[in-house]
Amino acid sequence: MGKGRLEAFSDGVLAIIITIMVLELKLPAGEHWSDLNYTIWSRLIAYALSFIYIGIYWNNHHHLWHAAERVNGAMLWANLHLLFWLSLVPLATEWMGNTHFAAAPVTAYGVMLLMSAIAFSILVATMIRGHGRDSMLAKAIGTDVKGKVSMGLYALGLGAAFIRPWIGLTFYTIVALIWLIPDRRVEKRLAEHGKPGTQHHGS
Amino acid sequence: MGKGRLEAFSDGVLAIIITIMVLELKLPAGEHWSDLNYTIWSRLIAYALSFIYIGIYWNNHHHLWHAAERVNGAMLWANLHLLFWLSLVPLATEWMGNTHFAAAPVTAYGVMLLMSAIAFSILVATMIRGHGRDSMLAKAIGTDVKGKVSMGLYALGLGAAFIRPWIGLTFYTIVALIWLIPDRRVEKRLAEHGKPGTQHHGS
Amino acid sequence: MGKGRLEAFSDGVLAIIITIMVLELKLPAGEHWSDLNYTIWSRLIAYALSFIYIGIYWNNHHHLWHAAERVNGAMLWANLHLLFWLSLVPLATEWMGNTHFAAAPVTAYGVMLLMSAIAFSILVATMIRGHGRDSMLAKAIGTDVKGKVSMGLYALGLGAAFIRPWIGLTFYTIVALIWLIPDRRVEKRLAEHGKPGTQHHGS
Amino acid sequence: MGKGRLEAFSDGVLAIIITIMVLELKLPAGEHWSDLNYTIWSRLIAYALSFIYIGIYWNNHHHLWHAAERVNGAMLWANLHLLFWLSLVPLATEWMGNTHFAAAPVTAYGVMLLMSAIAFSILVATMIRGHGRDSMLAKAIGTDVKGKVSMGLYALGLGAAFIRPWIGLTFYTIVALIWLIPDRRVEKRLAEHGKPGTQHHGS
Repeated sequence: MGKGRLEAFSDGVLAIIITIMVLELKLPAGEHWSDLNYTIWSRLIAYALSFIYIGIYWNNHHHLWHAAERVNGAMLWANLHLLFWLSLVPLATEWMGNTHFAAAPVTAYGVMLLMSAIAFSILVATMIRGHGRDSMLAKAIGTDVKGKVSMGLYALGLGAAFIRPWIGLTFYTIVALIWLIPDRRVEKRLAEHGKPGTQHHGS
Repeated sequence: MGKGRLEAFSDGVLAIIITIMVLELKLPAGEHWSDLNYTIWSRLIAYALSFIYIGIYWNNHHHLWHAAERVNGAMLWANLHLLFWLSLVPLATEWMGNTHFAAAPVTAYGVMLLMSAIAFSILVATMIRGHGRDSMLAKAIGTDVKGKVSMGLYALGLGAAFIRPWIGLTFYTIVALIWLIPDRRVEKRLAEHGKPGTQHHGS
Repeated sequence: MGKGRLEAFSDGVLAIIITIMVLELKLPAGEHWSDLNYTIWSRLIAYALSFIYIGIYWNNHHHLWHAAERVNGAMLWANLHLLFWLSLVPLATEWMGNTHFAAAPVTAYGVMLLMSAIAFSILVATMIRGHGRDSMLAKAIGTDVKGKVSMGLYALGLGAAFIRPWIGLTFYTIVALIWLIPDRRVEKRLAEHGKPGTQHHGS
Repeated sequence: MGKGRLEAFSDGVLAIIITIMVLELKLPAGEHWSDLNYTIWSRLIAYALSFIYIGIYWNNHHHLWHAAERVNGAMLWANLHLLFWLSLVPLATEWMGNTHFAAAPVTAYGVMLLMSAIAFSILVATMIRGHGRDSMLAKAIGTDVKGKVSMGLYALGLGAAFIRPWIGLTFYTIVALIWLIPDRRVEKRLAEHGKPGTQHHGS
């Protein structure tokens, strides 16, 4: 079974995405504190936000594949499709940071987040189809309320960003918080089944 | 047996190739939708095409080595030779995207694809030699019709690109589709042998 | 247990951080030895210093997780938090190198080192909480004198850098030396317990 | 034993080094074949040469650690020391390529190769000390004639490059060929010991 290499390749791509964004945090030209101007802080905030998103995706990806028992061609391509959208995050981050969170870049960032969330749910659906409705994987994912709520909030956020960028950003941040705050019930249920290492479920 | 490290190293190189192309998708200078001009879309399309090619190679590489039972010096170097040609994909992609798919860059892109396909078939031949004609690996690969057809189409495509770039691109796209559309017979035969995780065979 | 993938992802991020700094060692414009001017040497020295720091963190991270028996959500995020601060090292390095170790960049570099050290001790505390006070991991870490001394020296160093950059750098270098010089007693105690591969303990 | 993570981290660093060199192969400005000028070919040749060197180091590193049975702090740092010198290869490659193989860059490239070779032999010595003179590792490495000859040729080459760059390059190429041409006796002896996967020995 090729699960190991699929995870290793995804880890590699996610590790690179999360790190190359730093190359785009261009440097102050001068050598004084005053050279750390507004643009640099704007880029740093955009970077921190994207770091958290990629972290959430890595986390969810990790838990999703942890429950997987097999890999087929459809899953491989659904996984690459997700990585494609995530690979555009550095670009959207840079545009947003450089323009001090202007309307168009914030909307474009939301489009990227929404497409990534859709790609994740396609991956989840592909994996459930490949494992069967009665598989442990299907049960571990359940109805995936979090995933559906996230997509709705991204859509609302990118719509709002057209009018006021900060409203869009507020929506995106709420989604991040939903995933960052641990889901105690899931942790407990998994702990009961003797799997202390898996405390989140797929997005 | 060093198969694990060879796979890990190849995964690393392929993950980096697929991701650094994003660094070359230079950003719009302004903050408006109108700043997403034709050049940016041209670069994005070239990026998506190359992402799919690297994805196909990763997929085929994965299945080829999955069937391997040993590694020797010749296989190591045949593998590095393949990675060398694939490492030039970001360069050809950037040139093609920046020039809005002009004749010379599209031809150069085809040369790169053809060289990668030749390198892959050298790797396959080296591995069959190292495992023997009667090995499971040799049987899994079979006559490799897809690989030979691909090389022919690349050669036709790069020739045609000299005259009309879009004809060349059509040929390249046909090769990508040949590999993306799953080969039902292979999947079925492998499933009969109880290996649900391997549903493609080497290029 | 997801320990394997967490280590692989962290290895990937640390490997990229340590290597992309090279991209920022911009080249001499000319082709003569005299083109290797003071700025290039300044960047090289900053690079070598950061290479050693990332090496120390990789080393400590390696030994910390080697002793871990489980992973939970809090540990995953504490780990990502550490990687976030370490991912800013290339930026601080570049600023310091380009400005020939001016006061503000040297202080900023110290802030980054201090934040990374704090993030490491948060990770250690999270892991001790997750494993229990009587776990092997808690015993292996002990009172973590080195970690506390390091944080103190970083704080002193970044304060001093405000006045004289070279005093700050001296403090930072002392911390690096503390970690580079092997701790014979720890090596001996671990050797007694039959674990020859682990000769450092967590920072 | 931490051998697995050390190999994974080294693979990551080597994979990044070998791939980021492509980012420095700057593109032709125009869209015609004539825009592939002499500088671009010069950079491509330098890239191919460095790709082969990193490939050789990965190969030797792979076989050296394959024979290792344990890891200690000294080996970890000797390994990082080797990676430090190899991480400077992209820089030397770029300088050499941009200047059409001028005297100073070719000499600098030789210094880098020599320092890497010295770092490799320090790593080998550290590993033999850690495993004992009678260990399988020490026997597998033997007298390391190839490694010593390489260092001598690098030293001669960088001396000669001061006068005529092409003489230096000839020496460097001879070293590459020494490592590329398989050593039949070693392959045979290892095959007799039933280890078909290891057909080179450490540099």
